[in-house]
Amino acid sequence: MKNFTFYNPTRLVFGKGSIARLGREIPASVSRIMVTFGGGSVRRNGVYEQVIEALKGRDVVEFWGIEPNPAVETLRKAVALGKEKGVDFLLAVGGGSVIDGTKLIAAGLKSERDLWDLVLSRRVTDTVPMGTVLTLPATGSEMNNGAVISRTETHEKLDFHCSYPVFSILDPEVTFSLPARQVACGLADTFVHIMEQYMTTPRQSRIMDEWAEGLLRTVIEIAPKIQADPKNYDLMADFMLSATMGLNGFITMGVTEDWVTHMIGHEITALNGITHGATLAMVLPGTLRVLREQKGDKLLQYGERVWGIRDGSREERIDRAIEKTEGFFRALGLSTRLGEEHVGEETIAEIERRFNERGYALGEAGNVTGAVARKILECCK
Amino acid sequence: MKNFTFYNPTRLVFGKGSIARLGREIPASVSRIMVTFGGGSVRRNGVYEQVIEALKGRDVVEFWGIEPNPAVETLRKAVALGKEKGVDFLLAVGGGSVIDGTKLIAAGLKSERDLWDLVLSRRVTDTVPMGTVLTLPATGSEMNNGAVISRTETHEKLDFHCSYPVFSILDPEVTFSLPARQVACGLADTFVHIMEQYMTTPRQSRIMDEWAEGLLRTVIEIAPKIQADPKNYDLMADFMLSATMGLNGFITMGVTEDWVTHMIGHEITALNGITHGATLAMVLPGTLRVLREQKGDKLLQYGERVWGIRDGSREERIDRAIEKTEGFFRALGLSTRLGEEHVGEETIAEIERRFNERGYALGEAGNVTGAVARKILECCK
Repeated sequence: MKNFTFYNPTRLVFGKGSIARLGREIPASVSRIMVTFGGGSVRRNGVYEQVIEALKGRDVVEFWGIEPNPAVETLRKAVALGKEKGVDFLLAVGGGSVIDGTKLIAAGLKSERDLWDLVLSRRVTDTVPMGTVLTLPATGSEMNNGAVISRTETHEKLDFHCSYPVFSILDPEVTFSLPARQVACGLADTFVHIMEQYMTTPRQSRIMDEWAEGLLRTVIEIAPKIQADPKNYDLMADFMLSATMGLNGFITMGVTEDWVTHMIGHEITALNGITHGATLAMVLPGTLRVLREQKGDKLLQYGERVWGIRDGSREERIDRAIEKTEGFFRALGLSTRLGEEHVGEETIAEIERRFNERGYALGEAGNVTGAVARKILECCK
Repeated sequence: MKNFTFYNPTRLVFGKGSIARLGREIPASVSRIMVTFGGGSVRRNGVYEQVIEALKGRDVVEFWGIEPNPAVETLRKAVALGKEKGVDFLLAVGGGSVIDGTKLIAAGLKSERDLWDLVLSRRVTDTVPMGTVLTLPATGSEMNNGAVISRTETHEKLDFHCSYPVFSILDPEVTFSLPARQVACGLADTFVHIMEQYMTTPRQSRIMDEWAEGLLRTVIEIAPKIQADPKNYDLMADFMLSATMGLNGFITMGVTEDWVTHMIGHEITALNGITHGATLAMVLPGTLRVLREQKGDKLLQYGERVWGIRDGSREERIDRAIEKTEGFFRALGLSTRLGEEHVGEETIAEIERRFNERGYALGEAGNVTGAVARKILECCK
């Protein structure tokens, strides 16, 4: 096991009716709250009313319009409004995009620097405190200190680290009205988050392997059940908790991580505008195929413990584990080939160029250069 | 899944050489640190020197002599010393007893009330901040807000809740010099902590079941390996992490808990002075036998997923799951029958009386009265 530090101070408030607790979670000493929203689905599913009701008597400013893949251009407007109004607490109401965007707003409110500079600095610690009301399980942003921000004018998408939400409210009932495709992308995103932290060198930590495998089995078990019964409370509760636990540090203690699939997926989103979870479903099988030698032992373990693959030669079992993974995404109704989403050579060439431009190779072993990224993408054609 | 709130702000600093980081973890604004110790084993295994070296330049007061099953009588002396010296930070260096005791000192330093009154109040929130350097994996106290305190004069042992340690430093190398019996008791304690949170109503949360089962399988796998090779870093790292993750709230999100085995075990310790982990090894098989109807479905799941028991009738599989559990403790070299430790009818009668005196029944289902506690104990004779 590697040495590590684990720290996660977010208070998770989970369950039916928990939005009503908002008033208690935001300190009484707060003078003005800025509530941030996405495009308006919360007006249709009742979340907006629940939030406003819970904040009755508090001084509230609303900021609407944080888009999927939150754009720095939009967030600059939120920071300007927040500074003008003297906001001292932020409440993000939405999915990962609204929460990620609000993390950058929280940093921007405490800084005179431009927001993109803050993203490029990779880590910001001086932030306005924030809480969240999660509406779409997927990114884990509600209980971690990361955020991914897009810059529309240059088609860039980069991650940075900041503060943890003080609290996050997760009511599985708010997911009942989600479109099926958003749920599918959320399940894929959750699955790949776990894989990025699990599909690495085996035997680093028995517990982390067990916990990641337990989450993967859970997601695999609930995915078809959720498709058949999307208003089932217990299924959506397991989904919501899987997404949060899949990216809050609980499964990375003392182990290495990979994140190549995400780095390639972010580029596809930045260049082609495809939903994050959908990009991962196309890239992960390619990553596994290209890195199958390096990841062979863990792929065998994954095949056996997650998919029950025990028979056949080593190579056959690895093949089947990768096929099962691709099959999981296809069963979610997602494309697993770039061609299906009209991603072509132009995108591949640009991603290769960007990977090379970084000056360092990515992945657990630090060996994914532009050329390897191209191989992965060509494997997903 | 039940509604729940999860919150755990302890910073876990884990790994080889991590005691040297102490200086950075204790805020510079602290004016005087009281370091609390047990009986002196830290002087022999090098931990004391490492701690003192890491605190060089800080104003330090030492308090020695917190005993196993920390006694309120001892802790009163520590509070008097801390108040006299104007201590504003506590550092517990030891196992669960030193850490539990220091939690009560942390509360006592902020209060004019007697320490036993604080224990009886069940929950204290105003405390002096504290950190820990763990030397014996077992209780999980290094990353939770609970503590169990004994009162020697009345043979009582009660738990209360207070604040989380700000940080805990876990270096697996400090466990290399532990006596084999302490390691065995620590493994038993860890195992039973997990069981108290797992052996309840099935299907409350897939993830919590998976995570608890993963921890149980880990402890079962490493226990004999540790007995054979007690200076193996990776094994001891897995043990240390299992003990911490087994009682820090990570496996109780949205699920019910039991704790009957602990409540009976605490009484045996209070009345007979037997080490905590050793009492649990005697009581748990009895609890499972007496509550086998109520816990039948979960015992079957446990048998299959933790012990691989798939054949036989329902009753046979349950029998085997309980036998495997008792066998695990015996393989650790622990007694699993009260007679082996000279615990007799007098103790059973007193425990029955104390259980009845509470005025409420214990356990997940709230049905463990004095009479049921007697049945459990008679089953362990």
